[in-house]
Amino acid sequence: MKIRKAVKELDPYVPGRSQDEIAEEFHLKKEDIIKLGSNENPWGPSKKVAAAIQKELNAINRYPESDLFELKKEIANYSCVATDEIIVGGDGADEIIDILAKVFIEPGDEFIVPLPSYMYYEFLFKPYGAVPVYGKWDLDENKLDIDSVLDAITEKTKVIFLCSPNNPTGTLIPQEDIIKVLEATDTVVVVDEAYFEYSKVNNVNLINSYPNVFIMRTMSKVLGLAGMRIGYGLANAEMIEYMHRIKPVFSLTKLSYVAALNTLKDKNYINESIEKGIESREFLFNELSKIKSLNVFKSHSNYILVGIEKTGFKASKLSKELLKKGIIVRDCTSFKGLDEYWIRVSIGTMEENKKFISIINTILK
Amino acid sequence: MKIRKAVKELDPYVPGRSQDEIAEEFHLKKEDIIKLGSNENPWGPSKKVAAAIQKELNAINRYPESDLFELKKEIANYSCVATDEIIVGGDGADEIIDILAKVFIEPGDEFIVPLPSYMYYEFLFKPYGAVPVYGKWDLDENKLDIDSVLDAITEKTKVIFLCSPNNPTGTLIPQEDIIKVLEATDTVVVVDEAYFEYSKVNNVNLINSYPNVFIMRTMSKVLGLAGMRIGYGLANAEMIEYMHRIKPVFSLTKLSYVAALNTLKDKNYINESIEKGIESREFLFNELSKIKSLNVFKSHSNYILVGIEKTGFKASKLSKELLKKGIIVRDCTSFKGLDEYWIRVSIGTMEENKKFISIINTILK
Repeated sequence: MKIRKAVKELDPYVPGRSQDEIAEEFHLKKEDIIKLGSNENPWGPSKKVAAAIQKELNAINRYPESDLFELKKEIANYSCVATDEIIVGGDGADEIIDILAKVFIEPGDEFIVPLPSYMYYEFLFKPYGAVPVYGKWDLDENKLDIDSVLDAITEKTKVIFLCSPNNPTGTLIPQEDIIKVLEATDTVVVVDEAYFEYSKVNNVNLINSYPNVFIMRTMSKVLGLAGMRIGYGLANAEMIEYMHRIKPVFSLTKLSYVAALNTLKDKNYINESIEKGIESREFLFNELSKIKSLNVFKSHSNYILVGIEKTGFKASKLSKELLKKGIIVRDCTSFKGLDEYWIRVSIGTMEENKKFISIINTILK
Repeated sequence: MKIRKAVKELDPYVPGRSQDEIAEEFHLKKEDIIKLGSNENPWGPSKKVAAAIQKELNAINRYPESDLFELKKEIANYSCVATDEIIVGGDGADEIIDILAKVFIEPGDEFIVPLPSYMYYEFLFKPYGAVPVYGKWDLDENKLDIDSVLDAITEKTKVIFLCSPNNPTGTLIPQEDIIKVLEATDTVVVVDEAYFEYSKVNNVNLINSYPNVFIMRTMSKVLGLAGMRIGYGLANAEMIEYMHRIKPVFSLTKLSYVAALNTLKDKNYINESIEKGIESREFLFNELSKIKSLNVFKSHSNYILVGIEKTGFKASKLSKELLKKGIIVRDCTSFKGLDEYWIRVSIGTMEENKKFISIINTILK
């Protein structure tokens, strides 16, 4: 039995702790814990989903749909593309990233990520023998250092990840910068739009002009379905056809399918989730900005990056102090490209936000 | 944009048609269609599952568990192993197969499958550049040609798939034959026990003696959860730890988790599903054996392989004639190692079985 070198060199995955464990360690009631750590929609799923799932409950002994045609029609309508320009993933956008690796990566190929950004690109690409090459975000100006991406391109580059709004900085990449990258190379440029709804900006129009652009999305954020693991990608039909050749056939569960379909049909839910999300984000931005020791980033997404160096706390310490009071935020120490003085705070309901602001003020006073 | 050669050479996937499409083409009511094509549990999921899922419906905006500890405790109890000898997959056993490829396969490595067997091993392994090497089943004797497997082993062999009971033949591989393979090599030997409950035989005891054995299972068959995409694997803790390093973190949906947990706790449901399944299989075997033109295979699983060469029908024609009457069976023409004269019939409820037997008798009379 010979384990591959690429796997031996990976660190064992350390899962985030469950609410049950946190409740036990810090002597909290599970229902009192406020989750501001995972960029979810805090108002719950669409009410239409529960009813639709209940109708399917007696049929879950049967395999799911594999062609997903009705769902693709709804995504096409939602995203203004054709159904053959869509691929749906059964593990959120993570399955889509894995398919991209299968289609494009040979061992030794390179992919580019400007840091800090979503760390999971690297987690999923490395097992294929892909080599990360890092660009950078200018944290002083809170914008992408576009030259750092362009300069990183080599003949070994196979995929470039541009996250917009970027996780964890919350910043948009101007479309003119995305175009600069697309015109500099014919390798695949993934524009990760997991949070695009909160910015009211998207880059779908690029599909018509650039055969190498791939727009990646998830239903885990504004659409309120993180627990159901649904993602999708948009690109020209040829790239999508190749991806379908190796896509797992039944990876979307029967109930995830129904949940996705009925959420996309619930336009009121989506619009309200966006408006409430933006209101929540602006409230958090304004309230956190009043705390002088914090470096609060302007965000176009559903989370806010906060530099805490001047508070005297490291992120590990501050997040633990918050946990003791029942608040989960993201300690960003594990994000490459950030040091140990950053936390990321997701939007909560207004009640949750106020409780969080009160508690962080107490800790930092 | 450069598509990998291994992907270009794959055939585009042609999904099976949905019940809606079949109903439309053959002018049938969807609810009158009898599904004997996918080896599902025809009696539906455990009643405990619906109640448990309903409790979770308002929380599907939150990410799922990642450590799955409670579920692993139930699987440990069900399978008589320790919790650190378990890995859970979020796309049925298919995700487990993909993880095996990620851990063990470098481009050019070989894997062995005796034909005919489950075709999806090959679908999932080929994108990694793995080369299939085929052993064979002796269809005249309905047993594995063990020498064909032993002779296929080379220094490039990284994984050997032994399906027991074998899909589609329904045959068990004697443990002494599995041991012969385990002792002939230190590469990973996957014993696919997707259907083991119907045979009342398993090979879990081998884990204690052989570090290279991997027992693969699914909750899509007797456990009645095909639509929820849950699989698991059992092996020594070291192999499991390497697999966890690259396993997708959130691939099991929140509702799949609850469905799996509550099904495993429902011992009555499991026992009844096994007993009714065996009764159904034996009924089908006896009734089909009365049709002289059929070559009916003795099965230890929840399906029966039937050779139809003497009927004058090819499998494509017979399965279409059955479809016209609302019966879906598996046309086995696409199984490597079988010619165009085989169908596979899954167990149905006794009412479904009787209708099927009546219809096939009419077609073949």
